Amino acid sequence: MSSAGRFVTFEGIDGSGKSTQARLLAETLRAAGRDVVLTREPGGSPGAEEIRRLVLEGEPDRWSAETEILLFTAARRDHLERTIGPALGDGKVVICDRFADSTRVYQGVSRGDLRGLVDRLHDLMIGREPDLTILIDMDPATGLDRALGRGGQEERFEDFGPDLQRRMRAGFLALADEFPARFRVVDGNRGIEAVAADVRRIADRSLS
Amino acid sequence: MSSAGRFVTFEGIDGSGKSTQARLLAETLRAAGRDVVLTREPGGSPGAEEIRRLVLEGEPDRWSAETEILLFTAARRDHLERTIGPALGDGKVVICDRFADSTRVYQGVSRGDLRGLVDRLHDLMIGREPDLTILIDMDPATGLDRALGRGGQEERFEDFGPDLQRRMRAGFLALADEFPARFRVVDGNRGIEAVAADVRRIADRSLS
Repeated sequence: MSSAGRFVTFEGIDGSGKSTQARLLAETLRAAGRDVVLTREPGGSPGAEEIRRLVLEGEPDRWSAETEILLFTAARRDHLERTIGPALGDGKVVICDRFADSTRVYQGVSRGDLRGLVDRLHDLMIGREPDLTILIDMDPATGLDRALGRGGQEERFEDFGPDLQRRMRAGFLALADEFPARFRVVDGNRGIEAVAADVRRIADRSLS
Repeated sequence: MSSAGRFVTFEGIDGSGKSTQARLLAETLRAAGRDVVLTREPGGSPGAEEIRRLVLEGEPDRWSAETEILLFTAARRDHLERTIGPALGDGKVVICDRFADSTRVYQGVSRGDLRGLVDRLHDLMIGREPDLTILIDMDPATGLDRALGRGGQEERFEDFGPDLQRRMRAGFLALADEFPARFRVVDGNRGIEAVAADVRRIADRSLS
């Protein structure tokens, strides 16, 4: 899918501050006159939000890893068709808090090695990759404290634990190595403003 | 997936009598002492029934064909993991009213040619084919009358119209030609008992 807009995703472990940074970048770009759609996954369109609820509510083990990947891929397809694609077609900047890289890392790291399956399903049904992915890299222990501190755990997808956080962080950094053309890694172990300044510089270069 | 049980599916256009024949075969086999699980698609397990409701309720165009295929594949995966697979593992006979062939025909015939996509997704996420598929072949006009007569249309999946019925019938017959090892075609344009007798003979040969 080629389009006039730009598709920017934020990735990182729980508590990394990626949602805050996504929102701040959207505000900055809007203040500069850009037309911005700020969205998130899982969810991001009415149908995808319904699928999100189906996956995340109820018993943690009600879906197998494979069924969950299919449901998240269905949600992503709907999100892409109804929200992301049309906005890009209109020349807008789409900023998305988590996208396929979160699925790659989460399913690859925490549910047995399903990375290959995730990739084949992505290639078959989604295809689209972001133009720019900003990885907010964060010390796992600090991220865990932050995530727990904000009273997280409102959703099962945000799975907590120091060992999982460490492996997720390593997984995201490995993806950044794998896709250097679109990934930029920002040190998130600093104040919000310092991180936001880095994000803004990266976005300016990519979006100009 | 290899297993001790036998996996029998019924396919056919709306109004062909396949659901009745599936039930009658289950009763006959149970009377003969076989352990039988009678199930159906879309649905067939608690999770799959939830996905079925998500797909079939609401506006007809709320999901694209591709998203719908992903959702039905998620439901099928759950159905296979939670209902069909365990029963086959226990050596039971599983009789299923519709399975992947319905998706192949429906998505191939009525929603643009998505047969290739359906097949690739099936190979990736489902894999399993029935041991025996009984196609209840039916004159499209008669099937339509029957389906309308029973006050059908309780679900969007049962899409009505003479032209669609004709193309669906041709699609099922083409599948029977494509997979002759597992397909058996039964003439459904007769009384219930005559059709049931043919079904019983076919099942006896296959299950003995």
